[in-house]
Amino acid sequence: MQNMHFYKHKAIKKGLFFMSLKFSSNKSALLSVITPALAATSTKSTLPALEGLLFSLEDNILTVCGYDLEKGVKTSIPVYAKEDGAVILNAQKISSIIKSFPECEITFDTNDKNIVRITGAMSDFSIHGLAAEAFPNLPELGGDRSFSISQSLLRDIIISTHFSVAQTDARPILTGELFKIEGRKLTVVALDNYRLALREEENAVFGNETDYSFVVPGKTLLEFSRLLSDIEEMVIVEFTSKYIIFKIKDIIFFSRLLEGEFLDYNRAIPKQNKIFVKIRTEDFIDSASRASLLVDEKLKTPLKCNFTDNILDISCSTQYGRVNDNIKIEKSGEDIGIGFNGRYLLDALHACSDEYINVEMSTPLMSMVIKPAVKKENSNYTHLVLPCRLKD
Amino acid sequence: MQNMHFYKHKAIKKGLFFMSLKFSSNKSALLSVITPALAATSTKSTLPALEGLLFSLEDNILTVCGYDLEKGVKTSIPVYAKEDGAVILNAQKISSIIKSFPECEITFDTNDKNIVRITGAMSDFSIHGLAAEAFPNLPELGGDRSFSISQSLLRDIIISTHFSVAQTDARPILTGELFKIEGRKLTVVALDNYRLALREEENAVFGNETDYSFVVPGKTLLEFSRLLSDIEEMVIVEFTSKYIIFKIKDIIFFSRLLEGEFLDYNRAIPKQNKIFVKIRTEDFIDSASRASLLVDEKLKTPLKCNFTDNILDISCSTQYGRVNDNIKIEKSGEDIGIGFNGRYLLDALHACSDEYINVEMSTPLMSMVIKPAVKKENSNYTHLVLPCRLKD
Repeated sequence: MQNMHFYKHKAIKKGLFFMSLKFSSNKSALLSVITPALAATSTKSTLPALEGLLFSLEDNILTVCGYDLEKGVKTSIPVYAKEDGAVILNAQKISSIIKSFPECEITFDTNDKNIVRITGAMSDFSIHGLAAEAFPNLPELGGDRSFSISQSLLRDIIISTHFSVAQTDARPILTGELFKIEGRKLTVVALDNYRLALREEENAVFGNETDYSFVVPGKTLLEFSRLLSDIEEMVIVEFTSKYIIFKIKDIIFFSRLLEGEFLDYNRAIPKQNKIFVKIRTEDFIDSASRASLLVDEKLKTPLKCNFTDNILDISCSTQYGRVNDNIKIEKSGEDIGIGFNGRYLLDALHACSDEYINVEMSTPLMSMVIKPAVKKENSNYTHLVLPCRLKD
Repeated sequence: MQNMHFYKHKAIKKGLFFMSLKFSSNKSALLSVITPALAATSTKSTLPALEGLLFSLEDNILTVCGYDLEKGVKTSIPVYAKEDGAVILNAQKISSIIKSFPECEITFDTNDKNIVRITGAMSDFSIHGLAAEAFPNLPELGGDRSFSISQSLLRDIIISTHFSVAQTDARPILTGELFKIEGRKLTVVALDNYRLALREEENAVFGNETDYSFVVPGKTLLEFSRLLSDIEEMVIVEFTSKYIIFKIKDIIFFSRLLEGEFLDYNRAIPKQNKIFVKIRTEDFIDSASRASLLVDEKLKTPLKCNFTDNILDISCSTQYGRVNDNIKIEKSGEDIGIGFNGRYLLDALHACSDEYINVEMSTPLMSMVIKPAVKKENSNYTHLVLPCRLKD
């Protein structure tokens, strides 16, 4: 394992916490650095510093940093500086205070007791801050290896695979998503014991030199996806053996990586299927949603899917009554009756972006494989849903 | 007290529950009767009938009724009838089932075990219903006295006074709103121990013959206001000594009235004020909102309002720090420092519809009176906020 170098935050290292942060800037500029940093602060922590943002000023650059020991955000803007320094302010409080101001010039003025006076328009706040040295040490925010990828593609990949991330910590590695980079190809995989999402993108990655893979915590990734826009602009991804660092313009988002071996997902995907069905995605979603209306949440009553000839009949029978819902399909292979947890099935269907999907099955005990009906040249996804045993 | 006449629901009285409800209609027509009725069903009751809607069919008219013993809704539409009858269906389930259908013809077919088969497009539900006789008896839905009022005005009155309704049952009568009708004038009052909302509308009431007053449960009224549109069309209001009945087109909404004597609200309103302040409503709201950001929710730290010369300074000091917020005012009378619960103050301000308000005070221990700065000819409101004692 690579040797990690931690370093004290630059401003703190230079002894800036003995000086008093003083600067002014306008409301929208301040929000542009505070808002992204909120993504990386704890809302309930036993350590007040983890609920805070580190404000530090040096060379007319204000840097705002949030770090909850798992993930972090660092953003910067130029401001009108009066005195360099650093202080920690509660993230929620400072965010709502700045939001409450009208659009105006806002001045920060910190005294030697870490009380920060924030003034603007006709408002005057004096907020108790924490000494900057209470802020956790950040990992090194540069990796020896790197690549780049478009914001919108990365965002789409995270959103469309996230449903399969394990919610429990029974096997910690499964609470993350596997990123596998081979040349220009990116493969992202999330799986728990009930479903799997696999996304493969050719020509997605730029500037990569060696093949490698890493596992990013799922929750962290979802938080990060909210900072990504639906634009083609590039994200620079750098990493070490323990951390991944995403750089978007003035925002640096970093996250701890999960340690351990990811499951061999290829073994989980049935290869020798005998039944092939083409279905309109929206019809399948509507029908499974209707059938789910009678599901008993406590008993997790499964939906029974009967694929017969050119009809898919989804049924469910509970204390509330019974439902049969039919949709048209195109099938090749034998008829099959197979049960699914309605929520898992719907999650996998909602993550399909194509109008038509292909569904492949073998037996009522083997996973159903969902793929786009028309395969794209550079982009592919595979969703797996494990069936439930049906009582007959 | 007037003698009440209850009657068995018409369809039930005629023994229709021995017959099997069978009809068809389309999705949107069904939702137009089901959705308003949801306003009057319990979501968690020990009596399943109270979580249900009574569907009854007679003479090609489908009537849907929800009644939780406090409030009720009765709506009707013509449908294509096959067999008269009545059945109770769980309100949430039947609503989500009908919503889940595509726009299509939907058929209800009830068997003698109260199982209702609901079919449409390619979906087929069989839902366990309850026998219609389990539905509670409705009060008589016609009063001996009545008046009418425009929908939008009634809606506006309810929304703008509701903030003062008492949330606790300590004095049950205060959980309601007083309606007082004198000739063409309507006065509506809500008050608890901390605030008061009084709305007076001249020429609001049509067709009234005698003066009277009644108290409607506040929660029920708020639920009812959601059925009202922002249109001039009239609501017919009928009542008996125990019930109020609102009639809007095909919807009948009725509610139990609260029994007992309402407080003499006039005595609560200070008449001899010495300090008069004109304030821009939005400025006051923004300033009180900013000052509330540091309020300690557990300690309910009050906002201190210092009205001095032409400045209102709102301040608050808590474990998080201190805030002073200033706005311009026009004052006549002495300076005053007075404390308020920020939430109560903001509730009263948010319910003011005018750009400028007049605020009247006497001493730091007497209620602040809020009125529109420019009095309208036919419409007036008065909001009262009781001060908190300040520690100095």
